Amino acid sequence: SLPLALIAGPCQMESRDHALETAAALKEITDRLGIGLIYKTSFDKANRTSVNAARGMGLEKALPVFAEIGERFGLPTLTDVHEIHQCAPVGEVVDVLQIPAFLCRQTDLLVAAARTGRVVNVKKGQFLAPWDMVNVVAKLTQSGNGRVLLTERGASFGYNTLVSDMRGLPVMAQTGAPVVFDATHSVQQPGGKGASSGGQREFVPVLARAAVAVGVAAVFIETHPDPDHAPSDGPNMVPLKDLESLVALLQEIDRVAKAHPVAI
Amino acid sequence: SLPLALIAGPCQMESRDHALETAAALKEITDRLGIGLIYKTSFDKANRTSVNAARGMGLEKALPVFAEIGERFGLPTLTDVHEIHQCAPVGEVVDVLQIPAFLCRQTDLLVAAARTGRVVNVKKGQFLAPWDMVNVVAKLTQSGNGRVLLTERGASFGYNTLVSDMRGLPVMAQTGAPVVFDATHSVQQPGGKGASSGGQREFVPVLARAAVAVGVAAVFIETHPDPDHAPSDGPNMVPLKDLESLVALLQEIDRVAKAHPVAI
Amino acid sequence: SLPLALIAGPCQMESRDHALETAAALKEITDRLGIGLIYKTSFDKANRTSVNAARGMGLEKALPVFAEIGERFGLPTLTDVHEIHQCAPVGEVVDVLQIPAFLCRQTDLLVAAARTGRVVNVKKGQFLAPWDMVNVVAKLTQSGNGRVLLTERGASFGYNTLVSDMRGLPVMAQTGAPVVFDATHSVQQPGGKGASSGGQREFVPVLARAAVAVGVAAVFIETHPDPDHAPSDGPNMVPLKDLESLVALLQEIDRVAKAHPVAI
Amino acid sequence: SLPLALIAGPCQMESRDHALETAAALKEITDRLGIGLIYKTSFDKANRTSVNAARGMGLEKALPVFAEIGERFGLPTLTDVHEIHQCAPVGEVVDVLQIPAFLCRQTDLLVAAARTGRVVNVKKGQFLAPWDMVNVVAKLTQSGNGRVLLTERGASFGYNTLVSDMRGLPVMAQTGAPVVFDATHSVQQPGGKGASSGGQREFVPVLARAAVAVGVAAVFIETHPDPDHAPSDGPNMVPLKDLESLVALLQEIDRVAKAHPVAI
Repeated sequence: SLPLALIAGPCQMESRDHALETAAALKEITDRLGIGLIYKTSFDKANRTSVNAARGMGLEKALPVFAEIGERFGLPTLTDVHEIHQCAPVGEVVDVLQIPAFLCRQTDLLVAAARTGRVVNVKKGQFLAPWDMVNVVAKLTQSGNGRVLLTERGASFGYNTLVSDMRGLPVMAQTGAPVVFDATHSVQQPGGKGASSGGQREFVPVLARAAVAVGVAAVFIETHPDPDHAPSDGPNMVPLKDLESLVALLQEIDRVAKAHPVAI
Repeated sequence: SLPLALIAGPCQMESRDHALETAAALKEITDRLGIGLIYKTSFDKANRTSVNAARGMGLEKALPVFAEIGERFGLPTLTDVHEIHQCAPVGEVVDVLQIPAFLCRQTDLLVAAARTGRVVNVKKGQFLAPWDMVNVVAKLTQSGNGRVLLTERGASFGYNTLVSDMRGLPVMAQTGAPVVFDATHSVQQPGGKGASSGGQREFVPVLARAAVAVGVAAVFIETHPDPDHAPSDGPNMVPLKDLESLVALLQEIDRVAKAHPVAI
Repeated sequence: SLPLALIAGPCQMESRDHALETAAALKEITDRLGIGLIYKTSFDKANRTSVNAARGMGLEKALPVFAEIGERFGLPTLTDVHEIHQCAPVGEVVDVLQIPAFLCRQTDLLVAAARTGRVVNVKKGQFLAPWDMVNVVAKLTQSGNGRVLLTERGASFGYNTLVSDMRGLPVMAQTGAPVVFDATHSVQQPGGKGASSGGQREFVPVLARAAVAVGVAAVFIETHPDPDHAPSDGPNMVPLKDLESLVALLQEIDRVAKAHPVAI
Repeated sequence: SLPLALIAGPCQMESRDHALETAAALKEITDRLGIGLIYKTSFDKANRTSVNAARGMGLEKALPVFAEIGERFGLPTLTDVHEIHQCAPVGEVVDVLQIPAFLCRQTDLLVAAARTGRVVNVKKGQFLAPWDMVNVVAKLTQSGNGRVLLTERGASFGYNTLVSDMRGLPVMAQTGAPVVFDATHSVQQPGGKGASSGGQREFVPVLARAAVAVGVAAVFIETHPDPDHAPSDGPNMVPLKDLESLVALLQEIDRVAKAHPVAI
């Protein structure tokens, strides 16, 4: 088992400057910690609660910035795709294509993502059991791409609430795909604020500690210099200044966990 | 409150002949019962559990059949769209565009559907609370289309199970949109059979009776001459021969319910 | 199938006068409607959210009042028991012993209730599946008492919320026991107000209509002349003045439902 | 924060010999590991799924064995009480009185347990939110006993399934009571085998690792020399031979976790 990796970045690409700044800051932090980093950000928030919510820079403006981040900092990048036609151009530039949870069963989108040859990270739908993801993995591998990551981001638990079932981590690992724990969206309160989703940032470390102790390939944490003024997912992003100590602790737990892998 | 309407048809359009036959049979039944009918069928099953599962005839072949059903039987038709680019051509021919539950928060798809000017029927996501649908309705009305239907089709309840919360029907009605109860997918057991979804057809009448007694604009029931050999949703489709007596009973309940509308 | 019966009364026996008044009022209403009535009230609320909450008159003072209600109005009575030693004295006077939902698996309490020879009404635990109740029924019948009622009162659905799964009604009926729908506690929001449970009275008719349309032996509705000042369950009790029209409507739905019994 | 303690023992006290043997074995293991041990076993299983299931030795025969374990091994003991009248005699001998999850809101039982002056360990009901436990703690402290433990053992998640919400651990800790994680009953599948409860022993280490990484005062693990032939909870007890390595790993995680306490 490889040591823990980190997928991190701001929820949205807000501007070229903002993206480069946060990438630089994350590069510094993760170099100090000696942890692998994938820079994550979204060029479009396609399923906001409200039609009026900010959606990001858009594909065309974002792609050169992803390329610049890759070149300047030597960082692999990750972003989410929502439409079939986005897969090819995104796959030209970005290292990991992410399938959003709501879309994790859309066959054509999975196939299009697989065909780019890039790593595909599929978020488990809030409406799926961990063992259902074996069918999702098969849609990708049967399309000729075995480079798959699976991400846990919470399951529906009553209304406007998610719960993280830690049993799902080793269950999904049985597919052979590395498993990621998304600590940011797992603390989301979907629709919980009426016209936007709420979140409970204080539980990000709680759930991240738990998942890393079980054993995961990577942890996914959205972070922002000023989350309370971020255009999306503010309530559940970790302030950039708090990230280093959190990740350092997760690495400590990871060392214990990886020395004694869970077997189910 | 208008009397109960019926949205019915086979899950997939299997062939022109199959579609015309089932439309003819449904037309006869609903004429006898004096109930309004919208003929429902899918040209593509875009989110099957398995990549190998049958997906339907496809858009190009299906559209002329929808047109033929409309002309020959004078029936309004309904089908689901999964991609933005499908909305316009489907909207040329089909009367009601349906947004699948997993996609009910995809802003661009909602906007594209709204712009056709057709009625848009949005299925509530299994991961949403009934009161969250007000944001979905706003995405449509703010796109200039107030002809919206909302459909209840079950909420996630643990793994591989849905539950139908009858309180959601009047809650969604508060948006002003007519509310439909989908008795077919509410008895689905998502992923419950490993590589396909299970279902419990015997509970279709149970949940349909309950919903109609609360008060709904329409009930949605998939039906098939031979469900056990249907390419999809067989376990939860009602055999065509059993439909008439079920709908007749629902109409009796509806008469009582509509005479005493629920107020919340 | 017999016509719908009604189990009704105030949550707590507040005083002899209050009990007699409400019994008289309910007797009048149900005589007018021609519906069988069982008068329900509790002598002790043993599991209030807060230790400081009002708990009722107590066993000793309450038993003569139950006897008086039986004699004066010819009404069968129902109350809940929480301790083994309460079963025998309650069974001397009260017609139906009710096992609270939290206690529905306490073997000794079930056996003691069964041994009184009285009808035993067991509320399904919020933590149980409908098919689990077959084991509860067996605990009673194997103790020599086959006079069992089973009551649905909601299942846990995330935190501080219950959901009523209407499929559970025919599933529980497969045990052979008549099934009751408790419309009052099904709309409870357990713990939802911090130091007390909340409730949503406006959904009582919604869920009662649904359950009766599926088909139940009786509906359970707590009622009070002034719910907003009742010592317990105020938020989910129906004002006495609104009961008659609600029950009349339920009887209309029941006539349709019983003419076409559900078969699963 | 004190180092992790262990609450362990067989589900039922099967015989004096069996109890002494398992206590001796656990004493040896925990001495080697340097971890505090409370010996747990039940004298009566009062809420078995089936009325025919084995229930344990009973109070009278069990109390002298608890006393003997305390004296011979210097071990504090823990057992569960189900009836008010059991509290005083159990409190004479046993160090920790445990309130079963189904009974966690029974005011009189809580008060009777509190009045023994012993430590009271309350299991959170499967139907309660973590923040609801503040009311339970108040019932105990207002009865003059502030020596309270709170135990997480899973929340209802659909039918026949529990889920462990790790966010609940720090939420319950806000009451000031030490929090225990019950890894045995959290993997129970209530009623999942028809006439008995199922369980998934392989997930005990998964959930225990997660909870300890978040930070708990103690972990509760039922263990047995031969779980597959144990009279109750066999499917979720850990074989005695596997306990030492599991607890050693949990201690390692605990050292990291306690050095960096979670703050919510």
